[in-house]
Amino acid sequence: MDRTPLSLGRPRAERADAARNREQLLAVAREMVAELGADKVTMDGLAEGAGLGKGTVYRRFGTRAGIFHALLDDDEHAFQREVLAGPPPLGPGASPLERLVAYGRSRIAFLTAHITIVRSALDHHRAVPAEGGSAFTQAHIRMLLGRAGTGVADLDSLTVQLTSALEGPFMIFLALPGTGPEPSAEADAAFERRARPLGDSWQTLVERVCRRA
Amino acid sequence: MDRTPLSLGRPRAERADAARNREQLLAVAREMVAELGADKVTMDGLAEGAGLGKGTVYRRFGTRAGIFHALLDDDEHAFQREVLAGPPPLGPGASPLERLVAYGRSRIAFLTAHITIVRSALDHHRAVPAEGGSAFTQAHIRMLLGRAGTGVADLDSLTVQLTSALEGPFMIFLALPGTGPEPSAEADAAFERRARPLGDSWQTLVERVCRRA
Repeated sequence: MDRTPLSLGRPRAERADAARNREQLLAVAREMVAELGADKVTMDGLAEGAGLGKGTVYRRFGTRAGIFHALLDDDEHAFQREVLAGPPPLGPGASPLERLVAYGRSRIAFLTAHITIVRSALDHHRAVPAEGGSAFTQAHIRMLLGRAGTGVADLDSLTVQLTSALEGPFMIFLALPGTGPEPSAEADAAFERRARPLGDSWQTLVERVCRRA
Repeated sequence: MDRTPLSLGRPRAERADAARNREQLLAVAREMVAELGADKVTMDGLAEGAGLGKGTVYRRFGTRAGIFHALLDDDEHAFQREVLAGPPPLGPGASPLERLVAYGRSRIAFLTAHITIVRSALDHHRAVPAEGGSAFTQAHIRMLLGRAGTGVADLDSLTVQLTSALEGPFMIFLALPGTGPEPSAEADAAFERRARPLGDSWQTLVERVCRRA
């Protein structure tokens, strides 16, 4: 019985240590991405840059793709916090249509800015990140459509289609030959040019969809 | 010089033979899919069913996924012929909006009916078929939007988003864990239920998008 607090305490201490390692590794990874580009980030380089053992890096991320997966996960959570509790019109306090417009514009900017990291987070067995932000996007769009008074009966199907209209162009880009997990700065730059006008177009789309006859 | 006709003639004869083999193999594969289900179609079973050598089947399709890729390719071409030259409203002769509605409904029915074959055509290195119908879908939607007089300035971006709204739900389904290349009759049946209302929703979407203020 007297060992219980100790056996509970030890994992807690390990978890705190692991969390520090994780934060440190992610901070170093971000620096390396910014300075060298995502393509130059390796498991060994990250271990060296963070002053940690290679074993720690491999245990933490598993594969090189795991580094980018963790970076993306971190940024997704920050993005979602802005949507749920940040200032309007992205956060609460604006009309449903204004929030739909703001969400789409912010999401397009987020996905465009993260395209290299998203691509680097893919592994060869899954060309598209299924667990990505689209579940959150879908839930958020569904909530806003429900409040927008669109007069559309089947909001679930409309939500699936608008979620695809928003995130699909990025999935299609990631599935194109030569723009999957293989790094290509040219492909990413070309995509950024194509993605730029999508925000205006999203606004037109949702404004028309929400307009009753 | 006198060998030229012969050396040109021999590949031609081989090509006719290969085309016959291909037709025969695809016909047998269709029968096997219909009778046994896609999951039961194997390279060896197909060779046996067609009365051809295993070598012929491997040379023709490369992998098991290649069988389904060829089936899908065949059906895609038949579908595209209906759109380009079949009766209205899918084919020419109806208004651009009527054709947009008909195209979306037909495409959803096509993708839903083919979901097992699409899934079986995937290999593990590419979770989403990038070379699928979406280039055709995109070109067709762009043409119809141009004729529909929507009043939208950037039809290219709107086209990308509507193409994603139409085909994206199927890509998302294929990217979900457990619904990728692994066969699952339950997952396909569940998807068919979810896909059924997408046609009505597509009609609402494009009717509203094409409605000028």
